Order: sequence, then C-alpha cells, then structure tokens
Amino acid sequence: MKVTLERNHLLKSLGHVHRVVERRTTYPILSNVLLNASDGGLQLRATDLDIEVTESVPAMVGTPGTTTVPAHTLYEIVRKLSDGAEVNIEVDGAGEQMAITSGRSKFNLTCLAADGFPDLKSGDFSHQFTIKAGALRQLIDCTQFAISSEETRYYLNGIFFHTMDDGANVIMRAVATDGHRLARAQVNAPEGSQGMPSIIVPRKTVAEVQKLLSGDDDDVAVELSDTKIRFEVSGVVLLSKLIEGTFPDYERVIPQNNDKQLTVDTASFKQAVDRVSTIASDRGGKAVKLALSNGLLEMSVTNPDHGTAREELPIEFEDDGFEIGFNARYLLDIIDQVKSDAAIFMLSDAGSPTIVQSENDDDALYVLMPMRV
Amino acid sequence: MKVTLERNHLLKSLGHVHRVVERRTTYPILSNVLLNASDGGLQLRATDLDIEVTESVPAMVGTPGTTTVPAHTLYEIVRKLSDGAEVNIEVDGAGEQMAITSGRSKFNLTCLAADGFPDLKSGDFSHQFTIKAGALRQLIDCTQFAISSEETRYYLNGIFFHTMDDGANVIMRAVATDGHRLARAQVNAPEGSQGMPSIIVPRKTVAEVQKLLSGDDDDVAVELSDTKIRFEVSGVVLLSKLIEGTFPDYERVIPQNNDKQLTVDTASFKQAVDRVSTIASDRGGKAVKLALSNGLLEMSVTNPDHGTAREELPIEFEDDGFEIGFNARYLLDIIDQVKSDAAIFMLSDAGSPTIVQSENDDDALYVLMPMRV
Repeated sequence: MKVTLERNHLLKSLGHVHRVVERRTTYPILSNVLLNASDGGLQLRATDLDIEVTESVPAMVGTPGTTTVPAHTLYEIVRKLSDGAEVNIEVDGAGEQMAITSGRSKFNLTCLAADGFPDLKSGDFSHQFTIKAGALRQLIDCTQFAISSEETRYYLNGIFFHTMDDGANVIMRAVATDGHRLARAQVNAPEGSQGMPSIIVPRKTVAEVQKLLSGDDDDVAVELSDTKIRFEVSGVVLLSKLIEGTFPDYERVIPQNNDKQLTVDTASFKQAVDRVSTIASDRGGKAVKLALSNGLLEMSVTNPDHGTAREELPIEFEDDGFEIGFNARYLLDIIDQVKSDAAIFMLSDAGSPTIVQSENDDDALYVLMPMRV
Repeated sequence: MKVTLERNHLLKSLGHVHRVVERRTTYPILSNVLLNASDGGLQLRATDLDIEVTESVPAMVGTPGTTTVPAHTLYEIVRKLSDGAEVNIEVDGAGEQMAITSGRSKFNLTCLAADGFPDLKSGDFSHQFTIKAGALRQLIDCTQFAISSEETRYYLNGIFFHTMDDGANVIMRAVATDGHRLARAQVNAPEGSQGMPSIIVPRKTVAEVQKLLSGDDDDVAVELSDTKIRFEVSGVVLLSKLIEGTFPDYERVIPQNNDKQLTVDTASFKQAVDRVSTIASDRGGKAVKLALSNGLLEMSVTNPDHGTAREELPIEFEDDGFEIGFNARYLLDIIDQVKSDAAIFMLSDAGSPTIVQSENDDDALYVLMPMRV
C-alpha cells in the first residue's frame, strides 16, 4: 500500500471517523482505523461494533492495499502536521509497519491486518428517503435532552422515530423520554419514509449524526430496516445498529385534557428558574414550587441545607390559583428548548403531567411530570 | 446588619474571595464568607486556613453587623442577578437568616455566627516593599510550571523567593523545581526587599495572586515575615502562610561548565517535539531522543506500544555529535517558556543536566535533567 494525499483532506475524514472509536477497547483492532487504498482513493473506516463510519478521501494511490492502524494516534499525528502539507503513507512488504512521512517528519505505526477488522454488515434496507439536514437536526435537537441514561430501560436510551398520518399530513415524529419528562418533535414525513418501521436510534448514533450535519438545506440520505439505519451526509456514511426493544406508547403519557393555560415570558422565566435553582441540590430539595394566581407566579425553592429562594413573575393565567412543583433541572432543560418569546404551559392539577410548548408552534411538545412540594 | 449595594461591586469582590474557599471542608464555617458591615462599607473575607482573602466594597450601611454565609452559594446567587441591579442584604434579629433581595428575587441563607470564623493572624512583618504587577507576574509565570506536586517533598510545593547581590545589582529571584527540571527567574530587587528572609510561597497562593494581577504597571504592596506573606493588589488583600522548610541549594543544580551550545528555531522545535511526543506514553517510552550533529538535529521517540516518530531540524551546533534524551512533556513545558525566536541549549553530555534559555535574556533560566535513551 502506497498513497499520497493532502493533509487537510485526511484530517477532515479522520476527524469524522476517529470519534466513534472508544478510548478503551477489549480487542486491539477496535482501536484502529481501517485504511483501504484503491483506484477510487483512500477509504477510512472505524467502528465500535454498534456504529460504523466510512469516508473516502481523494488520494494518489501508488500501490493499492488495505491495513489498520491506531485511530486516535493517526488522528493526532495528522492534526499536528502543517496545514496544507502533503502526506505519504506506505506499508512495508510484510504489512507490519506503516510509514507516514510529511516534510521532515516521519512516523512508523504498527499495523494490524485488515482481515480481522469487524464489518457491521448492513443487510437489506426496507426503506430509503432523503431528509433535509435542517429537519433532521430539528428532530434531534428538540428531543435529545430527554433520552434516558438508565441502562436497565435500554429501550429508552435513544430517540424513537416513526411516521404517522395526523389526519391532514403524513408526519415523521421523534420522541424521547426518561420517564420524568418527554419530548416530541415532528416534521412533514419525507417522501419514501411512509410506512417505515418504528425505530429507536441509540444516543451515541444520534450525537454522531448531529455532528455531521451542517447547512440546513443539505440532503441526508437515510436507509433503514428494522435492525439497522444508514445515514449518508456529504460523503460520510454512518451505519448503526438500532435498539431492539419496544418504545412505550408515548401518546398515553401526553395529557389530553389540560385546560389551564399559563403564559410566561420565556427569558424572564428561564432566568428566574435558574436563580432559584441555585439553592436546589440533589440532597436537600430539588423541586421548584410554582404558586399560580391570577396574573402572578411565585416561584420558590426550599432546601433545608441551603436556605430558600423566591421569585415573582407577571404571568397570564385565568384559572383558580394552585401550586405545582417540578424538578429544577428538568424545568430548565425544557424551557431551554422554547425558542419563542412566550412559553405556554397547559396544566391540569398538582399531581398531573404538564405540557410545555413554544407559542404558535405545534411541531415540538414537552411533557413534564410534577414533583410533590 | 442591613446593607444596600450594587450587584456588580459585590460580584467582583465575591469573585475574588470565594475562589479560596474549598468545595469540601471539614468545618461548615470554612464554606462560608464573612461579611462585615461598618461605616467603611461591606468587607468580605474568606479563608482555607492557609490563605485568607479580604476585600471591601462600597455599600450603604443601614445597620452595621457581621455574619457568615455559604460563599459559593452567595456567589452563584449574585452572579445570576441582573447586571447593574441593586442588592439588599439584611440579617434577622437572631442572626440566623440572611435575606438577599434584588428586584423580584428574594433569597434566604442560613448564617453561622462570625465569632467562629477563623482569623489568619498576620503577626509582625519584617519587610515591606512595592513591586510592579508586571515584574511579579514574570517571576511567577516563568517558574510556576516547575513546582513539584509531590507531597512528601513539601518544601518543593511552591516558589522559592529570595534576594541576592549578583555583583552588579541586588536582584530578586524566583525558583521552582520538582527534581527533574528547574526554573529560575529574576528581576531587580524592589526597594525594601533587600535582606528579606528567603521564603517558599505555596502553589495555591501563587495561583491566586497571579489571578489578581492585571496591568503591568499596577503596584503590588508586599509585606512578609518568615512565616507569612501579605499581598495587596487594587484593594484586595491576600494573606498566606509560607511553606516552612528549607529549599534545596538550587545553585548546585545549575551546571556551570556546559560548553556545547545548540541554537534552534523555537517555533519549529516546539512543533517537532509536539509531533514526536504523539507517540510517547507513560507506559511505553516518554523520552525524546535528540541526536545532534553539525547543522542537523534528529529528534525521535520510540515506543514499543505505538511505533516510532522522527523529525529533522536544521540547527546551529559546532561540537562533536552526540545523543541525549529528555522527557517529552518536560521538554515541551520548557520550550513553551521561551519567548524569543531562537532557543539556546547549553549542553555537557548525555548524562548531565542541560540549560535552556531565551536568546538575549538572562533573566530566566531553565535546567532539564536528561533521560537515558
């Protein structure tokens, strides 16, 4: 194998693929990136056995060949080479050493044969469609924070995607929940996605895809079956296993009859929650109490360890006053998602889940369970 | 106690004093900041029993008084209040609760009585002088990285300051070493510092003082005895214990007869060391080998775990060629200190300490022990 290519091209692709490589791996070859030089250029591939990222870079291939070397080390070396430098990669006859030469720098890395490198076989895909990067980003951004990290409820460790007919349009929905809060976002279903299997995309896959998205109008090609999903974004291919399991019937969690509407100024509300939560702690009290009355919200936290905090906010609220408590952290997470000047809360009573939405935006909806205060 | 003051003034001072408060303390009162309201305004004080920071802020004092409240919590609260807001602080009659009110925000913090708050008595100072912030910063910046963190050699856990007559002038020197490398910086001794006791200023004190320094021409008032040091910078007073112990006779470590001069381009050398050290690791090989010959430096790292790295650099070197090894991390730390275009190495042989200096700058000097390669 003998290849010459531009440092910046190699760095960009290594930047994409090396991220999926775990720092500590059970098998040495999982620390490596696969390099495959052929007529088409140099292909890079890395995997953690759940996700596989592949990208090709333009390269002058002297001798085709394939091998693997430590991914993070190769990335660090290439990163430290000069901007715009030319890089020569050559593997010795025995396939044991890779020499990386650039200017007056020369590195030798120990190779492991490519035939031991795992292949996350994609299998057959049942559906394929193209979605705009902006729409996919919106689905991910609105729901990611609510993904559960509780390993025992593995079926909540990702974002649930499915399509449905809402009466007027076919829509694609993304949902995540950890049992305490739920986030639901939707966009018009891309052509070809209708009737796709309902799938759970793992947390790490979602985060990697998110990093690959750039311009809102870029096309993302998606192919999926009920066990795997494949994203192609500007030449980078990310193939991932899906979480096998059944996502709970989230519709049952979304209250239908919350008739008490509270309207707050998003920025003031956020600042007030942030301030009172200074007093909150996991040990003492982590609940923010909202005392609602006509026109005025009194927000407070009482923590025996630290003291008390109280804020007053003008609100729009027409119903009889009552009190309800929320986890300070969760309330902040959700209010952070509201992009409009006003945030709308739909409440029922102190013991029932509350709906939070942006004003004039039905595409994202959040449900928050109350806490006893 | 009843005080009204501007949030920005309070925030700035809390920012200075709260930093010395440890996150985990054995005694609850050590988590607190002391507030003392008198005719002069509001004085804040915090301590970790080794360092004590005191600052006064302008305030309208309604009722004088003194108490203590949790430092980090108060800092977080004040930080989250609006820019330019007015803050009212009031302690109840029993001295148990402090109410902090600003606009529509109200916080109550539990107080602890001020009489239990430790006082790092300064004692009598034998020397006092004024040093420019720029000179003090230079002494600290050049030597700080070499402070040892080995607790058993506690007398190396700080910067050693002393004055001496170098034949032409009286100079003040700062020295730090961890046994593997040594850094020495010097400035003209400020008026009044001559004959001061030789002192070891602890690592944390040095770091706190560094953060207080701003404009190079600002005056820093220093007072010291052989057990304590007091810095006053723009109204902030930092009082610290000194490390009791004997700093080793560092002059004996600085080689006098290194006659082989190596001159390198600082930037190229730094980049080359950074690149080859990608291969270095604590487990495998952490030594960079420098092979010197007339006009050419070959730098290399060999690590059985990772591979090899080699760089070539043009140099100025007139002597017979030889090889010498250094710890990659230590070499990087020192070359980072060299501010001139060229760095000068004064070498003797592969087993002896090497001197590194900036070109045309005798005020800072670094000694690096070699490693066998």
